[in-house]
Amino acid sequence: MRASAPSQEEIRRQNLGALLRFVHERGQISRAELTTELGLNRSTIGALTADLTEAGLVTEETGRETGRAGRPSLVVRARSETIFAYAVSVEVDQIRVARVGLGGVLLDQRSAPRAREGNDVISPAAAFITELTGPGRCVGAGIAVAGMVRRADGVVQLSPHSGGLAGQAIGESLRERLPGILPQVAVGNVADLCALAEHTRGVAAGCDNVIYVYGDVGVGAGIIAGGRRVIGHGGYGGEVGHMVVNPAGRACSCGSKGCWETEIGELPLLELAGSTDIGHAAVLAVVERAARGDAKAIAALRHVGEWLGFGVANLVNIFNPELIIFGGTLRDVYLAAAAQVRSRLNSVGLAATREHVRLRTPALGQDAALLGAAELAFQSLLNDPLA
Amino acid sequence: MRASAPSQEEIRRQNLGALLRFVHERGQISRAELTTELGLNRSTIGALTADLTEAGLVTEETGRETGRAGRPSLVVRARSETIFAYAVSVEVDQIRVARVGLGGVLLDQRSAPRAREGNDVISPAAAFITELTGPGRCVGAGIAVAGMVRRADGVVQLSPHSGGLAGQAIGESLRERLPGILPQVAVGNVADLCALAEHTRGVAAGCDNVIYVYGDVGVGAGIIAGGRRVIGHGGYGGEVGHMVVNPAGRACSCGSKGCWETEIGELPLLELAGSTDIGHAAVLAVVERAARGDAKAIAALRHVGEWLGFGVANLVNIFNPELIIFGGTLRDVYLAAAAQVRSRLNSVGLAATREHVRLRTPALGQDAALLGAAELAFQSLLNDPLA
Repeated sequence: MRASAPSQEEIRRQNLGALLRFVHERGQISRAELTTELGLNRSTIGALTADLTEAGLVTEETGRETGRAGRPSLVVRARSETIFAYAVSVEVDQIRVARVGLGGVLLDQRSAPRAREGNDVISPAAAFITELTGPGRCVGAGIAVAGMVRRADGVVQLSPHSGGLAGQAIGESLRERLPGILPQVAVGNVADLCALAEHTRGVAAGCDNVIYVYGDVGVGAGIIAGGRRVIGHGGYGGEVGHMVVNPAGRACSCGSKGCWETEIGELPLLELAGSTDIGHAAVLAVVERAARGDAKAIAALRHVGEWLGFGVANLVNIFNPELIIFGGTLRDVYLAAAAQVRSRLNSVGLAATREHVRLRTPALGQDAALLGAAELAFQSLLNDPLA
Repeated sequence: MRASAPSQEEIRRQNLGALLRFVHERGQISRAELTTELGLNRSTIGALTADLTEAGLVTEETGRETGRAGRPSLVVRARSETIFAYAVSVEVDQIRVARVGLGGVLLDQRSAPRAREGNDVISPAAAFITELTGPGRCVGAGIAVAGMVRRADGVVQLSPHSGGLAGQAIGESLRERLPGILPQVAVGNVADLCALAEHTRGVAAGCDNVIYVYGDVGVGAGIIAGGRRVIGHGGYGGEVGHMVVNPAGRACSCGSKGCWETEIGELPLLELAGSTDIGHAAVLAVVERAARGDAKAIAALRHVGEWLGFGVANLVNIFNPELIIFGGTLRDVYLAAAAQVRSRLNSVGLAATREHVRLRTPALGQDAALLGAAELAFQSLLNDPLA
């Protein structure tokens, strides 16, 4: 049921939020463009911008000469240096922390290796945040984890790759570890946050129906349908790695059999390629061996590429997206086996749904998880800039 | 990117729409409840109701005594008898047409058998509409089809079960066949429209994450995520019948192999049960035979029930819904094989996602497709009641 129309005060808040969101997503935007994009008159845009300037969120300066008659329009810029969030990415093999300015600017970052299944992520995250401290106002932090995150309270659920994080309210723990530093800490699934980042300022900008398939040991997806993130009832939407694609296949760490990640995850690829190493570097080594003509590496990538295309076809039939993005190790698998992926998509996908779907790699690369985590932290500021 | 806040005129339109939507979804609602639900003051509610009354869309009357002090609140009712839409359901074996009043009231309906793959649905639909004509104002018509419908123009796409409808703009054809009768005709997929109807006034009312799995010969789903219908880029979202669940399985009419509908559709059930009939009645006969202890019918229902649970588990992992509804022939299969469905869901679904999901049959039964098609027709009135 749709809510009723907003009050005057809510309208002002909405307009301030909409304007700040444009500035945040574009980095900088002229008053003239804002007038067009927001459909508000010049004096309203001027008043809103003045409010945001006074709050220290944006600056205005004279734009470049446009060659047209009249004064050049003022350009509104996000104050990225002084309005910032911390972004934490807890990955299978490493932990990364960044300070990200309003406008999605990566100001500085740190990383450290992490033992698989290691459970203390709070101490290294807190140490890096202390190290990265800068002048200005921190709006909070966002944490990306390769696990299922309960929407209600950010607690990581017991899931195949949550390791020692299961049951932990890592957001709340981080906030408590650094008293007075972090107004709020939000936690999200890494695939969801990569999708959010690419949708906000990457390859999926302007696309309303997008699936970001993220893989390392596990596989998950960030899904955007009709311009909105598919979160699910409890917050666990997008666990496509546990879509069973091969009932006759291998046992999965989730207890089921033939899950998609048992065919396209890092481990089956490395095993098929005869690699004894693990991790993203080992996957890249397989891709390199294949490029040099190593038959076993080529066969492994083809096998994984076919199953990648197979599962993507299922998702294309279910969602009818316009764009599929391959992230994590799947970026490299896709690039090395694009022909197999497309061929399987063509044989399994329905004509009407597969015809217009574009397959792409991320525009933000490794930064997507950090930028997505920062987006999560910026949401409350963007919803109500002067709160 | 979020649009800017609305103007005064848009606010009034939004409020009128929100109020009429409440009346439409509830059938009748007191002014006091509207004040609470919409968060508007009593005089605004009074003014909006007066506008809608004057436009002939609602009536007001004194409600029953509440036992509390003061005057009883006025009750606002939809004028279901005089504000109506036509709803057409093109099914595999029959075509149904109904006149549906504002508030979702089935005023009258007709049906006729249809030859499978028969391509002229316009003539019988137009004939029934003419027969069903009543006094008042027709807002348009909605058509539910068991096929893929292009969002941009309502053209039915070539798909496994679209039969002779492929390539036809059936909405436009129907509108032209009855000049001056139908202001607009919208077309949608039957599973999508059943989901819409159950979400508006059925078993899924108030649920934000719902999957309605509809089956007859083909299988499709209407999906609601975060309170919104998952439509897809071209309008083809929800083709879950062509999610491949059994790569070693049978050839599917779509050209692929092992699609979900090759395991749970009407045809494999009837074949396994040794039935030589087709259609919903034949499925019911199998269920009846199983209830009487027929071993072949029992085995067929168990087999289909297991694959039904298997595919549902995939969807539960992907969407994390709170509710799954089984419609069409799958209603009867589910009721006869609920244990198999739940058991497979438990073995394939992730703990966090499967734990809270409820499995249900439709509250609106066979009426869902008609009520959903009518919802489609009512949308423009609800978006802008005084246009």
